[in-house]
Amino acid sequence: MSLPSIQVKQANVITCKAAVAWGPGKPLVIEEVNVSPPQASEIRIKIVCTSLCRSDLTAWESQAIFPRIFGHEATGIVESVGQGVTEFTEGDHVLTVFTGECGTCRQCTSGKSNLCQILGLERRGVMHSDQGTRFTINGKPIYHYCAVSSFSEYTVVHSGCAVKINPTVPLDKVCLLSCGVAAGLGAAWNVADISIGSSVVIFGLGTVGLSVAQGAKLRGASTIIGVDNNPEKGEKAKAFGITEFINPNDSKEPVQQVIKHLTGGGADYAFECIGDTGMVTTALQACCDGWGLTVTLGVPKVKPEVTAHYGIFLTGRTLKGSLFGGWKPKSDLPSLVDMYIKKEIQVDEYITHNLSFKEVNKAFDLMREGKCLRCVMHMEK
Amino acid sequence: MSLPSIQVKQANVITCKAAVAWGPGKPLVIEEVNVSPPQASEIRIKIVCTSLCRSDLTAWESQAIFPRIFGHEATGIVESVGQGVTEFTEGDHVLTVFTGECGTCRQCTSGKSNLCQILGLERRGVMHSDQGTRFTINGKPIYHYCAVSSFSEYTVVHSGCAVKINPTVPLDKVCLLSCGVAAGLGAAWNVADISIGSSVVIFGLGTVGLSVAQGAKLRGASTIIGVDNNPEKGEKAKAFGITEFINPNDSKEPVQQVIKHLTGGGADYAFECIGDTGMVTTALQACCDGWGLTVTLGVPKVKPEVTAHYGIFLTGRTLKGSLFGGWKPKSDLPSLVDMYIKKEIQVDEYITHNLSFKEVNKAFDLMREGKCLRCVMHMEK
Repeated sequence: MSLPSIQVKQANVITCKAAVAWGPGKPLVIEEVNVSPPQASEIRIKIVCTSLCRSDLTAWESQAIFPRIFGHEATGIVESVGQGVTEFTEGDHVLTVFTGECGTCRQCTSGKSNLCQILGLERRGVMHSDQGTRFTINGKPIYHYCAVSSFSEYTVVHSGCAVKINPTVPLDKVCLLSCGVAAGLGAAWNVADISIGSSVVIFGLGTVGLSVAQGAKLRGASTIIGVDNNPEKGEKAKAFGITEFINPNDSKEPVQQVIKHLTGGGADYAFECIGDTGMVTTALQACCDGWGLTVTLGVPKVKPEVTAHYGIFLTGRTLKGSLFGGWKPKSDLPSLVDMYIKKEIQVDEYITHNLSFKEVNKAFDLMREGKCLRCVMHMEK
Repeated sequence: MSLPSIQVKQANVITCKAAVAWGPGKPLVIEEVNVSPPQASEIRIKIVCTSLCRSDLTAWESQAIFPRIFGHEATGIVESVGQGVTEFTEGDHVLTVFTGECGTCRQCTSGKSNLCQILGLERRGVMHSDQGTRFTINGKPIYHYCAVSSFSEYTVVHSGCAVKINPTVPLDKVCLLSCGVAAGLGAAWNVADISIGSSVVIFGLGTVGLSVAQGAKLRGASTIIGVDNNPEKGEKAKAFGITEFINPNDSKEPVQQVIKHLTGGGADYAFECIGDTGMVTTALQACCDGWGLTVTLGVPKVKPEVTAHYGIFLTGRTLKGSLFGGWKPKSDLPSLVDMYIKKEIQVDEYITHNLSFKEVNKAFDLMREGKCLRCVMHMEK
């Protein structure tokens, strides 16, 4: 007696619209792309909303892999699943994640890290499984970004790079938990583990920095200093917990000295959310002796080396990195979504603009000009 | 009715022998020095034994404050006490400490730091209280070193810079707990908090590095890699817990790569005990993604800046400094001495040479040539 053969539903190639970046800094072009069916362990997602994160902008301006489809902060609905995928089924609501969770590697099983060795940060613009792309135009590959590429009506991701979420949650809001807001909250909670009554300084008041501020406020920090050289940031930042605003251009004194005065000798915690390694040094100097902790979250565009005097460390300071706030996406994000449902965390407040997908270049302009926190782009239904 | 006046026993100036450094790198000269009575909150100590620590050597070679009396790792007996000192009395056995504990400042009361704001590292060669010296020759000041200056038959220290210890303990042994051995054990236990079964790499196998090794072994680390370019260190290091020895000169591959192979991707903990900021970078690279912790203990002679690529941190590594192993001297050292009494820690084994005080220059030579761990110098009785 032969066993019945297993019927795998074979999805077809989908032709849809995607915003393709043809070269560094060149405006994206909405093109028709072919999206392959998901391969084994992959899923194809119909993107519902995608927001623009600064790392999309930084990569678009400075990286070498083109043509490419950017976007990684998104929500969508599973359209089809590849062989062996049991976790997802057609119609599931998902968050995409740029750093996956395989659940089995040394990092995933450590209980100490979210830096999955199998599905961690993908920098070459290809899929983890076969180093190929799932996008083509006229048979030529269009590269992925961060294993997500959400600036497309449909995308294919490894099933470890998506998180199933409660289907009642508004997808046009929680896309921000796919990267920026989660990254900031996690840096404050998981990486720094901010304690009640402490002093915190945050360099850079974009969505990530203001999410650190929210995290610090929810932990009961008593002083939350925001530093940004965009004077418009000051007032808006208060809504997220910032108690003092410093524009370094307003002071003759170096900003680390101003912070030392405000905190009676230095902050307990400093967060670098700009992506400026020189500012990491300043953040270390702004921390207190003994236990001052500096957390670096940013990806610098220039000067990749962090430099600091050895005495900074010998007098009790610590420098630590935070990638996606230490969250293990599959294990941790559903509870963060639950916190949103219970109104325990703010998310909607970071959305300054709602745009249609075809206005994607406007989102890039707004971010370059420092005029937005998050622009959410809505796909056509 | 007038209150009876308080009689403070006024100690006299003592003339005794001290090893005076007259200039950078110049052999010390045994001179007759005058040692003032202790002032308020100070004590005068008859030094019994003092060992040579590498930071004495580094400061003697490179610093600018002369004439000076070096030495800070020592034991002695209280000879007299200044006004207001109630903690000590004549005849008490003490350890000297280069970083004091006032017990009242923000750092001392924090429970998180040993970096006393009042009696912390003294770099100018004077007493904390009045910025003066207690040593003179022909009326001219001879500067202190690290608030201790134990290369003298008598010295004056702030009462916060000495720790009363069990008088049954051999003073010619536990002087090593005054700095080097305690610094290494504390870096392993208090600062890194090494966990059982972990992998550890130690750069520099002097007394501090080998005390980190002992600390790691006692915590149950399974792999303890020692790195030193002195081939003689390898065999001796095994007695302190080193399980693998790497001489970087023996390998074509960069040492961080060798360590990654040995540890399956990078060590859990790395300790820089040389005082070479370039090696701090190597130590960071030798640590694993996710939770690799690098602890820097050394004081560099050249290039004071630590430099590392931001990606090192973003992939989950932490850099932390350790000053005196995080021990609060008064609060913590007595229990370390108790561990020595109970034979729970090795101390005697680090003593490779016992010398008379007048052989102090021989100790400097031995350390420069990498021929000793600790040289203990005994004062004449």
